Amino acid sequence: MTDGDEPPPTRRRGLRTGRLEAFSDGVFAIAITLLVLDIAVPRGPQPHLLRTVAGLWPAYLAYVVSFATIGAVWLGHNAITDYLDRTDTTFIRLNLLLLLFVAFLPFPTRLFADYIGENRPERVAATIYGIILLLTLTLLWTLWRYAVREGLVRPDADDEEVELLTQRLTPGLGGYLVLIVAGLFAPVIAVIGYLAVALFYILPVRRRWYTVPRARRGRAARGRAGRS
Amino acid sequence: MTDGDEPPPTRRRGLRTGRLEAFSDGVFAIAITLLVLDIAVPRGPQPHLLRTVAGLWPAYLAYVVSFATIGAVWLGHNAITDYLDRTDTTFIRLNLLLLLFVAFLPFPTRLFADYIGENRPERVAATIYGIILLLTLTLLWTLWRYAVREGLVRPDADDEEVELLTQRLTPGLGGYLVLIVAGLFAPVIAVIGYLAVALFYILPVRRRWYTVPRARRGRAARGRAGRS
Amino acid sequence: MTDGDEPPPTRRRGLRTGRLEAFSDGVFAIAITLLVLDIAVPRGPQPHLLRTVAGLWPAYLAYVVSFATIGAVWLGHNAITDYLDRTDTTFIRLNLLLLLFVAFLPFPTRLFADYIGENRPERVAATIYGIILLLTLTLLWTLWRYAVREGLVRPDADDEEVELLTQRLTPGLGGYLVLIVAGLFAPVIAVIGYLAVALFYILPVRRRWYTVPRARRGRAARGRAGRS
Amino acid sequence: MTDGDEPPPTRRRGLRTGRLEAFSDGVFAIAITLLVLDIAVPRGPQPHLLRTVAGLWPAYLAYVVSFATIGAVWLGHNAITDYLDRTDTTFIRLNLLLLLFVAFLPFPTRLFADYIGENRPERVAATIYGIILLLTLTLLWTLWRYAVREGLVRPDADDEEVELLTQRLTPGLGGYLVLIVAGLFAPVIAVIGYLAVALFYILPVRRRWYTVPRARRGRAARGRAGRS
Repeated sequence: MTDGDEPPPTRRRGLRTGRLEAFSDGVFAIAITLLVLDIAVPRGPQPHLLRTVAGLWPAYLAYVVSFATIGAVWLGHNAITDYLDRTDTTFIRLNLLLLLFVAFLPFPTRLFADYIGENRPERVAATIYGIILLLTLTLLWTLWRYAVREGLVRPDADDEEVELLTQRLTPGLGGYLVLIVAGLFAPVIAVIGYLAVALFYILPVRRRWYTVPRARRGRAARGRAGRS
Repeated sequence: MTDGDEPPPTRRRGLRTGRLEAFSDGVFAIAITLLVLDIAVPRGPQPHLLRTVAGLWPAYLAYVVSFATIGAVWLGHNAITDYLDRTDTTFIRLNLLLLLFVAFLPFPTRLFADYIGENRPERVAATIYGIILLLTLTLLWTLWRYAVREGLVRPDADDEEVELLTQRLTPGLGGYLVLIVAGLFAPVIAVIGYLAVALFYILPVRRRWYTVPRARRGRAARGRAGRS
Repeated sequence: MTDGDEPPPTRRRGLRTGRLEAFSDGVFAIAITLLVLDIAVPRGPQPHLLRTVAGLWPAYLAYVVSFATIGAVWLGHNAITDYLDRTDTTFIRLNLLLLLFVAFLPFPTRLFADYIGENRPERVAATIYGIILLLTLTLLWTLWRYAVREGLVRPDADDEEVELLTQRLTPGLGGYLVLIVAGLFAPVIAVIGYLAVALFYILPVRRRWYTVPRARRGRAARGRAGRS
Repeated sequence: MTDGDEPPPTRRRGLRTGRLEAFSDGVFAIAITLLVLDIAVPRGPQPHLLRTVAGLWPAYLAYVVSFATIGAVWLGHNAITDYLDRTDTTFIRLNLLLLLFVAFLPFPTRLFADYIGENRPERVAATIYGIILLLTLTLLWTLWRYAVREGLVRPDADDEEVELLTQRLTPGLGGYLVLIVAGLFAPVIAVIGYLAVALFYILPVRRRWYTVPRARRGRAARGRAGRS
């Protein structure tokens, strides 16, 4: 009888969070793919096309940084919904707010791609870019904090794992602020810093997230063994 | 034997409404993400980029309003399909018509973003924007009314819940007409009104929709208890 | 034992056709949503915005026609994959070819939207538009014919239903050719004809497709009753 | 008890690779559909529209080549995830890198579409195009090699099948390098060669991938028979 309670919430969860995930995945996938539209060869004949294309390096850099950032947010979002037992009103509202920023990212990316090389505008573009990236990652962190506080996380999730994910999602506010200020003086270096932050999210974080389930699987196996 | 009847319709429903939901989610996600393409820095060198970017506020406002509206329609669509037992010809046709308006929203959004600040055009743009938003929400309401009238709603859905959703989806026709008329005199205020309507849809509505299932879960649990 | 054979093919089918459907749905949803990008207000100040926006009617007409056509193809694709038991190499290749034309549709749509009103170009645009629409619907029909001939259709599908779907998907080659020729003299009338064809696909076809399953459900119920 | 171990990994796999597949499918579908935006009629009145549209043949060629290449990569990705038992950190990172190149493809496609016909630029455009295509296919191959080496492949996958897929995904590095060099002299011929490579991926490869499961199904049937 105790076990009989488990399936229905799972099904309900699938029903509820299924479309949330599908819709969010759609927005992530589209935003990440629209970034390429920010890379454009200037109009008119280009006798030295190779030089022109090479001169677009700020656009490629911005493409890679935004791609890595959206990829990192997607991975984080993935990890969060993996731990969710259910969602509530505020969670869905926060999720929409996060998507509003994710879907907005192509704009500051284009801004940065277009104005690098022009002295004053490039500082403005890099600063705006940094602020939007910071807000996006902060919202992701808020989403997770909210889920933990409101008890939306699966009851069988390990406290240690939850704590680990919290640490990993903490956007390193201080580091970001340093980069944003640095962007006023050396915009390109700041943007490379943003790339480093995104890669930091992508790389070591997942090593933990995706090895963790083994423990959970072990526990589940024990549970099954105990029942039979 | 009585219970044996349940699984097949569920599976059939999944087959039938599964792709309807997937396709609709795709259109919602793409339309909401394409909105960012309506925000564009004017061509040419921008020595005062910060001022230029700040001057784009109508584009940001239009982005937020359209994002909130599509988000609200997506939530409403979600709630509707949640209650569906099956779909029929007319429902799918109405759904396509709704998507036609949702996918069209980036156009009036761009119109509003581009013409705010020019005296006569801004009134035209705000009025067109309001009419399209009104038509979109009216279609969502029509979709739900049709589903209720034709008995497409799940038989186990509570009459009270159905009534509640009907109330919430009623687009406040009167309020909208007031805003559209107001848009002829104060376009920006009208658009802020549209944002308020979208937030009204997003915020309190979900509080009810997403607490409702508890009752249903309770009933399901009782059912299970009764059987064993 | 006889019944035991059924579940595995279903699962395998889900595995195989699941991503085919997801990918196809994605392309349909994106192509249908990108159509809005073909509607554009001419650059420069527009003191008479209402007149300008009203003057864009060919763009709206093209939007509705292409939306209805892609919607019709999606419904047809839906009906086809519903009847599929499995896919094979050639089916997937044909499906990619169909998607190539579906994803291409925004181009002739824009062509038509841009050149209506200019005497000679509008004839060219309407003719190209008609040919692409015809090719798209012919490919959909080919996909279904191929599935039927190669025995990819579910064994439990009724011969009558299969025949009905074949009839409905037959693109009325003759009627289309008449419209394409008519497009050389009266482009707008031809395009309204294309809309009529798309609506013909959307409207009465589904009435049959979506009432058919009742028979199938009935049979399934009988099967279940017989077993117990 | 031995059989009882099977379902949980399957469920876990669905959880883990489900969103990876959904997100990847989204990026593939969007990138393949955005290609149409690279086809554009030049601004200004076009009294000889038919000639203008016919003159866009490099854009159509580039559309077909990129569509076929993304289609081929999608099919290959499909085959890879079909064999996956689980994913790990590096696999997901490599997958994101692959998607970064897939999502980038519309840019070199536009480059090629725009600069064919101008003597020097067309060589540059064709070479860049070839290099990006080569990198994309190499990454797909790397993804598969990594999965095999790290034992992410399902234990029940046939060694022969795995070997076969490896051979098929090997991008024919030599042939590609020949085409890239050829592109310096005859860009259009090189691009037709890229199309041939993509079609080679699409056509005979699937014939094997999609006949293979029969063997697997046979084995599964035997397994079931043995149990009862």
